[in-house]
Amino acid sequence: MPHNIAILGASGYTGAELVRLIAGHPELEIAALSADRKAGQTMASVFPHLRHLDLPDLVRIEEIDFGGIDLCFCALPHATSQAVIAELPRDVRVIDLSADFRLRDPADYEKWYGKPHAAPELQKEAVYGLTEFYRPEIAAARLVAGTGCNAATGQYALRPLIAAGVIDLDDIVIDLKAAVSGAGRSLKENLLHAELSEGYNAYGLGGTHRHLGEFDQEFSLIAGRKVEVQFQPHLVPANRGILASVYVRGSVQAVHDTLAGAYEGEPFLHVLPMGEAPSTHHVRGSNIVHVGAVADRRAGRTVVFAALDNLTKGSSGQALQNANLMLGHDERAGLDMVPLFP
Amino acid sequence: MPHNIAILGASGYTGAELVRLIAGHPELEIAALSADRKAGQTMASVFPHLRHLDLPDLVRIEEIDFGGIDLCFCALPHATSQAVIAELPRDVRVIDLSADFRLRDPADYEKWYGKPHAAPELQKEAVYGLTEFYRPEIAAARLVAGTGCNAATGQYALRPLIAAGVIDLDDIVIDLKAAVSGAGRSLKENLLHAELSEGYNAYGLGGTHRHLGEFDQEFSLIAGRKVEVQFQPHLVPANRGILASVYVRGSVQAVHDTLAGAYEGEPFLHVLPMGEAPSTHHVRGSNIVHVGAVADRRAGRTVVFAALDNLTKGSSGQALQNANLMLGHDERAGLDMVPLFP
Amino acid sequence: MPHNIAILGASGYTGAELVRLIAGHPELEIAALSADRKAGQTMASVFPHLRHLDLPDLVRIEEIDFGGIDLCFCALPHATSQAVIAELPRDVRVIDLSADFRLRDPADYEKWYGKPHAAPELQKEAVYGLTEFYRPEIAAARLVAGTGCNAATGQYALRPLIAAGVIDLDDIVIDLKAAVSGAGRSLKENLLHAELSEGYNAYGLGGTHRHLGEFDQEFSLIAGRKVEVQFQPHLVPANRGILASVYVRGSVQAVHDTLAGAYEGEPFLHVLPMGEAPSTHHVRGSNIVHVGAVADRRAGRTVVFAALDNLTKGSSGQALQNANLMLGHDERAGLDMVPLFP
Amino acid sequence: MPHNIAILGASGYTGAELVRLIAGHPELEIAALSADRKAGQTMASVFPHLRHLDLPDLVRIEEIDFGGIDLCFCALPHATSQAVIAELPRDVRVIDLSADFRLRDPADYEKWYGKPHAAPELQKEAVYGLTEFYRPEIAAARLVAGTGCNAATGQYALRPLIAAGVIDLDDIVIDLKAAVSGAGRSLKENLLHAELSEGYNAYGLGGTHRHLGEFDQEFSLIAGRKVEVQFQPHLVPANRGILASVYVRGSVQAVHDTLAGAYEGEPFLHVLPMGEAPSTHHVRGSNIVHVGAVADRRAGRTVVFAALDNLTKGSSGQALQNANLMLGHDERAGLDMVPLFP
Repeated sequence: MPHNIAILGASGYTGAELVRLIAGHPELEIAALSADRKAGQTMASVFPHLRHLDLPDLVRIEEIDFGGIDLCFCALPHATSQAVIAELPRDVRVIDLSADFRLRDPADYEKWYGKPHAAPELQKEAVYGLTEFYRPEIAAARLVAGTGCNAATGQYALRPLIAAGVIDLDDIVIDLKAAVSGAGRSLKENLLHAELSEGYNAYGLGGTHRHLGEFDQEFSLIAGRKVEVQFQPHLVPANRGILASVYVRGSVQAVHDTLAGAYEGEPFLHVLPMGEAPSTHHVRGSNIVHVGAVADRRAGRTVVFAALDNLTKGSSGQALQNANLMLGHDERAGLDMVPLFP
Repeated sequence: MPHNIAILGASGYTGAELVRLIAGHPELEIAALSADRKAGQTMASVFPHLRHLDLPDLVRIEEIDFGGIDLCFCALPHATSQAVIAELPRDVRVIDLSADFRLRDPADYEKWYGKPHAAPELQKEAVYGLTEFYRPEIAAARLVAGTGCNAATGQYALRPLIAAGVIDLDDIVIDLKAAVSGAGRSLKENLLHAELSEGYNAYGLGGTHRHLGEFDQEFSLIAGRKVEVQFQPHLVPANRGILASVYVRGSVQAVHDTLAGAYEGEPFLHVLPMGEAPSTHHVRGSNIVHVGAVADRRAGRTVVFAALDNLTKGSSGQALQNANLMLGHDERAGLDMVPLFP
Repeated sequence: MPHNIAILGASGYTGAELVRLIAGHPELEIAALSADRKAGQTMASVFPHLRHLDLPDLVRIEEIDFGGIDLCFCALPHATSQAVIAELPRDVRVIDLSADFRLRDPADYEKWYGKPHAAPELQKEAVYGLTEFYRPEIAAARLVAGTGCNAATGQYALRPLIAAGVIDLDDIVIDLKAAVSGAGRSLKENLLHAELSEGYNAYGLGGTHRHLGEFDQEFSLIAGRKVEVQFQPHLVPANRGILASVYVRGSVQAVHDTLAGAYEGEPFLHVLPMGEAPSTHHVRGSNIVHVGAVADRRAGRTVVFAALDNLTKGSSGQALQNANLMLGHDERAGLDMVPLFP
Repeated sequence: MPHNIAILGASGYTGAELVRLIAGHPELEIAALSADRKAGQTMASVFPHLRHLDLPDLVRIEEIDFGGIDLCFCALPHATSQAVIAELPRDVRVIDLSADFRLRDPADYEKWYGKPHAAPELQKEAVYGLTEFYRPEIAAARLVAGTGCNAATGQYALRPLIAAGVIDLDDIVIDLKAAVSGAGRSLKENLLHAELSEGYNAYGLGGTHRHLGEFDQEFSLIAGRKVEVQFQPHLVPANRGILASVYVRGSVQAVHDTLAGAYEGEPFLHVLPMGEAPSTHHVRGSNIVHVGAVADRRAGRTVVFAALDNLTKGSSGQALQNANLMLGHDERAGLDMVPLFP
């Protein structure tokens, strides 16, 4: 039986990506799309690549009748989400793509986002949405918090290794290269084509990137002790893709065995043969993650790589995968597209 | 009932694109993949973005048992195709993506390709593969010739207009902007990233581009008289996409009405509202064509635009659409993916 | 003797480009830089690529002492310029890079820019800044109007041909491909990397691009009759460069001879051998224009190409060349850098 | 007095970059250009962006009369250089841009390059060309070995720190992001625009990149003990630029002080304020290096960044700077161009 879906904040990239994916889903129907400033417009005018689809026009959230909605994707800006979700009927299940419910501890939220959480009750209830590691909780959840896209990439490289105890927890460096769509459709000077193309640079300097909050929360939980990684993201001139190069201390054999074991049978996680490294080219537009482990020339040092598409597996694809779990559909429904190359 | 498919020349971009599309087709099975120089390798090693698919290894053409093959896509280089196809069993249906069978007249072939055709009998039998205009012939054909990707784009802008007699046949200028994947995976200096990115230029200067042979053949056939357009392609720094800006003499209203009428009900052809122009951004990775018509400030002059993805609608998507017709499947099967943006 | 220079609007791309060029000029000294919203900041903070230069901080225009300024470059937004320049001391010579003084006729200005001109007296006095065609007037001018970058490119292809009467004046089509820096550092959605890279499209549809006003003014003046060209610009994913493909009726030999003759001895204009076409790759970062003429297969039809860098020869380089004329320096001073390739 | 220059291997990117730079040098004259496979061609045909320069045609090396040559830049492929240079007259001074003379120890050369050195006598004599650290040796040298471009970038970040003893020598990770022109004008599949643009990946996996030989040699020499860094390069979709993100253990204050002190007064080395990170955007096309140091959130861990243009400061600019030292010119001659942005 088809389920009715609403997407709040449909005029951003993650909203459009949800529409792209759901268009190929046999059991989901898009019943409502909201976008406050663009309310009244058609999706075709906001995203001409969707012009051939039969979609509801953009409305304001207040105009949506949530009575017929089974599940609501909330692709609103950070901080806006918590207020909106607090007002949604309790029988609507919610997947939030913002950062608002990723951190369980209100103190952590305040530390990383600079103000108190406006809906601490909901925060308690939210399930962290990294599908492969929270399946039963997600399936049963009313509110799922989509992960940060950088945070997802780093965790795919590291979670199994931390859980298995095969790496030194005090010497982990995540050097991450992110494409620009992760910054959203926002009008910032450094996101202009003329500013970004043909060059690259680090950002989120000095351990200030908010996804560190997720790393701290999740890695410490797994390890049963405080784990603080070093994390330095870089912005590269491409639209989709995240590549994490993770420098760890541990034997490449143990690392590779652990990753291969952890992801065996996973539909979207693929561990490359030992010694091979992934490329963002080969996952673009898909829900696939490529993971690799390569030995350094010095024994005991290994580089773990993870590559994914930030808009798909890093955000909207993850959200749809979680929706499938929550609604009882095949987890892969709508998500089996092959990467687009070249 | 599923049909078995072979792809000859699977190590090029159109071969990989066929695999991408067929992977999402419910009724087609890839039974064999050939690539002469890369025979013995896996597709994963040649195209790592396909690594998660269960595909046969690359073999030499001679190793394929065509007994079980229903339809063969031939994605070989120009001139190689004709020799290979001449040797295929007659009960295997063939879609050739090369230029070898696009021109019906052997003299035309020799004029544009510089040598006599090696399989003139087959040439006579081949059906020109521009789906929307040759549906019954394609459905019944044994051999279909995929069109040139530039030639397809120009024809989507012009065929209905020439047929309806709403434009001046002696004053047609096609200024075309093509992305680089149309040149294939060939190792040429001007296709290097360092040479192509950040700049652009005309090529195929002075009416020498071979797709002119297709324009001449088709437009003259439609008009019932000789029609020679002016055609100047340009290479732009992008991977997928063709945009044709076609300068014609004719009223924009008549032009728009004619295009809208001609493409009404077509699953992949979308005519924009009058006065709007398409972008290659909005068709990338899809089988969709966007067509637009815009009036110049001077009465009687109109610019017609057509945009498509050269690897999909311009080549492998067109081929799959034709295969669906030939094998009796829904014409849209495997082709309903939404464009990838951003 | 060195001259003191002020640059108003130094926080935009043409302002930064002026700084880049003047840094290599032996006789010019940058004495003042203004940027209203960024007043108080250093140029290093606004343009880190200029951090090694010894430059004055950004100030508000009112803070500049024009007493010591010999020449002022005005790189302000359109419509802002006219008010500012009207207030400058009469003994400061001015080169305006905005559109405010390009059209001599106030009615033309109002037609293309949508409101009456605020300084019609100055408008009368302004000299059109296409260096090669207005040398004596520029040398003597108090106020020079920098041309539109697209307008400059089209004129380099066409002015000598119209003057010589070797082409049909009623059938001229300019299909132009422009890189994105021509749109300035403005925060618009379609200028974002995620929106622009990997695709391209027409803009300024239907004969509405304002540079048409310049074409009309200049071509009609040269021809001694009204000339209205068809002009369709396109935005391509690159940062610098304009390529005009101009479709004309006229013999390629006459066209090429005329261009070669007109530009003989010009330091920055290079006419390619007949049958060759230029590329924006080969003029990037320089003040050079490459012009080419190619015969179509149909006699009497020729494509003329012109390629330049919009920020250099199309704007700031042109301005500096004019400043050299006005101040009595070698016209090439500060402008002899070789194009950057790759 | 002007000096006569020869460039061997002028048809590659470093050769063309040398021409670009020398064109702006007041005291150098290009007397000969060689390119074996393209001998007989003009530089304009091989590099149209140089078409306006008055340059000698390309010849074979044997055709060059070295009698009048003061200094020869050798931009030949690795392994070719050693044989060619061994044949040059002893009174011609030589700057080799290949890898052939970078490693002093023949055993190291064989280890990293896979075969014995063909000119071990010359190898002994060669001076390592990292200008700022070998000025007197370079000024006096007959043969200077240009450094690897990645090796130069990493050394600018690390040499002063190793010399000063302010970081832990056993825990250095260099994560490097390189643009594609460093790979030269070679026809390789992964360098095609369609393969490289829009994505990125690691290469030189597992401590196999040859520039590690330079790191080992130089860092061990400075430290007076064996130092082995971890080095992982990545290829990003841009044409020019290298960014090294170097993870070290040491106080950011000591690191920044050391770098600032070491590079004080250097014409091309600029240390950013503490806590700021450089971008390749801001050094493109110039001989400038931007260096930065940023504290991690965990005390005692610092990220050092260095950014430069691989073709300029990483290769041809470095070579010209060395030539200036060798010939007694101002070290900055021909090298004062401002970075090109955007």
